[in-house]
Amino acid sequence: MALPALSEENLTELASRIQPIDPAWIKAGQARQNDLTKPPGSLGMLEEIGIKLCGIAEACPPPVPAAPKVVVFAADHGVYAQGVTPWPREVSVQMAAGIAVGFAGVAVISRANGAQVEVIDVGLLSHPEPVIDKSIAPGTADFTEGPAMTREQALTAIAIGAEAAAAAVEAGADVLVPGEVGLANTTPAAALTAVFTDTPVADVTGRGSGADDPMLARKVAAIEKGIAVNAVDASDVVGALAAIGGFEHAAMVGLILEAAARRVPVVLDGVIACSAALVAAALAPAVKGYLFAGHAGVEPAIAVALKTLELRGLVDLDLRLGEGSGGALALPLLRAAALVMNEMGTFSAQGVSKE
Amino acid sequence: MALPALSEENLTELASRIQPIDPAWIKAGQARQNDLTKPPGSLGMLEEIGIKLCGIAEACPPPVPAAPKVVVFAADHGVYAQGVTPWPREVSVQMAAGIAVGFAGVAVISRANGAQVEVIDVGLLSHPEPVIDKSIAPGTADFTEGPAMTREQALTAIAIGAEAAAAAVEAGADVLVPGEVGLANTTPAAALTAVFTDTPVADVTGRGSGADDPMLARKVAAIEKGIAVNAVDASDVVGALAAIGGFEHAAMVGLILEAAARRVPVVLDGVIACSAALVAAALAPAVKGYLFAGHAGVEPAIAVALKTLELRGLVDLDLRLGEGSGGALALPLLRAAALVMNEMGTFSAQGVSKE
Repeated sequence: MALPALSEENLTELASRIQPIDPAWIKAGQARQNDLTKPPGSLGMLEEIGIKLCGIAEACPPPVPAAPKVVVFAADHGVYAQGVTPWPREVSVQMAAGIAVGFAGVAVISRANGAQVEVIDVGLLSHPEPVIDKSIAPGTADFTEGPAMTREQALTAIAIGAEAAAAAVEAGADVLVPGEVGLANTTPAAALTAVFTDTPVADVTGRGSGADDPMLARKVAAIEKGIAVNAVDASDVVGALAAIGGFEHAAMVGLILEAAARRVPVVLDGVIACSAALVAAALAPAVKGYLFAGHAGVEPAIAVALKTLELRGLVDLDLRLGEGSGGALALPLLRAAALVMNEMGTFSAQGVSKE
Repeated sequence: MALPALSEENLTELASRIQPIDPAWIKAGQARQNDLTKPPGSLGMLEEIGIKLCGIAEACPPPVPAAPKVVVFAADHGVYAQGVTPWPREVSVQMAAGIAVGFAGVAVISRANGAQVEVIDVGLLSHPEPVIDKSIAPGTADFTEGPAMTREQALTAIAIGAEAAAAAVEAGADVLVPGEVGLANTTPAAALTAVFTDTPVADVTGRGSGADDPMLARKVAAIEKGIAVNAVDASDVVGALAAIGGFEHAAMVGLILEAAARRVPVVLDGVIACSAALVAAALAPAVKGYLFAGHAGVEPAIAVALKTLELRGLVDLDLRLGEGSGGALALPLLRAAALVMNEMGTFSAQGVSKE
């Protein structure tokens, strides 16, 4: 079921399609915010969201997002063997099915906020229905013993993510949220964050879905070993992603790049999506202009990643579910921010006293 | 157009209709959260919102809010004369009309989130169409020279707010957001917050819609003078509200009390609504169980009030528009929190592995 791998040349071409945000549109957005009938800056971050949407769409006021889509990538991880999560391994498969069927957290939150959800198996140990089957392999290899993926596997996963984004946008999606499910996947996420922000592993490694102190210590040790064993070098982005990433992380990289290339905003969830965004930004720095951070979360890697990505979490409710839930929860803020720019009165048109 | 004042006895009766939240429903809500197919606590504050909704509705899972309503009270303030805001005085009337017509911030954000909006003039200097006319007087008196309102005026404003809540709920509203407009109204809000939280005035007085340093100093001085001149005593709640409050603050007190008496959740916006909630809680401490803090805001009084009200802001986007905008912006979080409790799978029913 696996697709042919993206070539390294095609990946470079994809990255080059991402246009830097034109400062003229940011300026236009700021000017409109200042003309809306409110004290300047009084809508805080909501104004910044609206301005960013102007830059992304090259339109002021920006289009109001009406068809958000959450694309969940599901996979398993060889590093699970290192004892980095308290949850039984079959949960990845069960949760992927649960999201596809509609009873898992991200499915319900997406429904609440009018977002479609799609679940794609990019490497689960066994394939559950009704999840879409694009499985590359039954889980990655244990990165403490060698690369988690081959370069070809990583490129294939990127291609799957990019194709999912392209298909979603062509079907009308106007905001994308990359989601994920995969037991142990905060471990590769922390590894990628350490490497791509040049931060000590212990500073970006958290408890994921419930690691206790000894488990957290094992997690840090496994990541440090993985980075050393594979002689990970951040300047070889695909090589580093293949060595210590996961199939879903790589698929998210593809989704983020393709969405940005198509000028579609991407709302990140937690530590997995943020780590994928770091990889995407290493391939194409301009991608940052198309990203929103759905939430601030509690995993330490999120704060480190958001700083590098120059983003601030929109929702701060101590979420740590993952799946894309924090991204889906933030969607109404984008809608409200855009609607404000479209429908609020202006000092210039309404004759409200300014001073 | 003014209504007859609520008697002091009727106010006591209204306060006594507010039932304390039954801990059994909080426990039931917590048990359901723990049975949902997610790591315990992984939805953070979203779980707490859902549990609180169980307590309010005495139902688990709670009903999903479907018909929120924002009720905006508009008034003018005698303390404007002390130079506490940079905005021209006619802006209150203009903004009230702008909200009613639908082009102001709270109107647009409410529309984005499916909330109805109603605007009630409880004491503007002049009455704009199409705002509902319940004006008690053309602005309050300057509280630096004596009480802002008579007791009867304060009780009338409370009655107007309570009747607005009753009418909204009887027409189907299932969440209420008290909103406001009124130049200089952060000044009485800071005064009420200082008095009802026993906090120094300087610690709860902020820049409102744009006060500079000298203006901020005048604002603090005016509040201190108002509290002294009127010998404000927090133990006489109605007397204190009348002395240093505003018509819209008092109307919000009535709305909050009546909503809580009817077991309808109330989502507060910023410093004005929080100060009204402090007054409501002084009359009926059980009201706290029915309140949500829409946002954290930037005015210092908000943090002080929320601590006393035992609430945490749901949205933290540096908002300082007021009008009810922060409350309206938080509405999708209540909806998502309730839907999660209704529609997520449970470990007991779905056979997902827990350990």
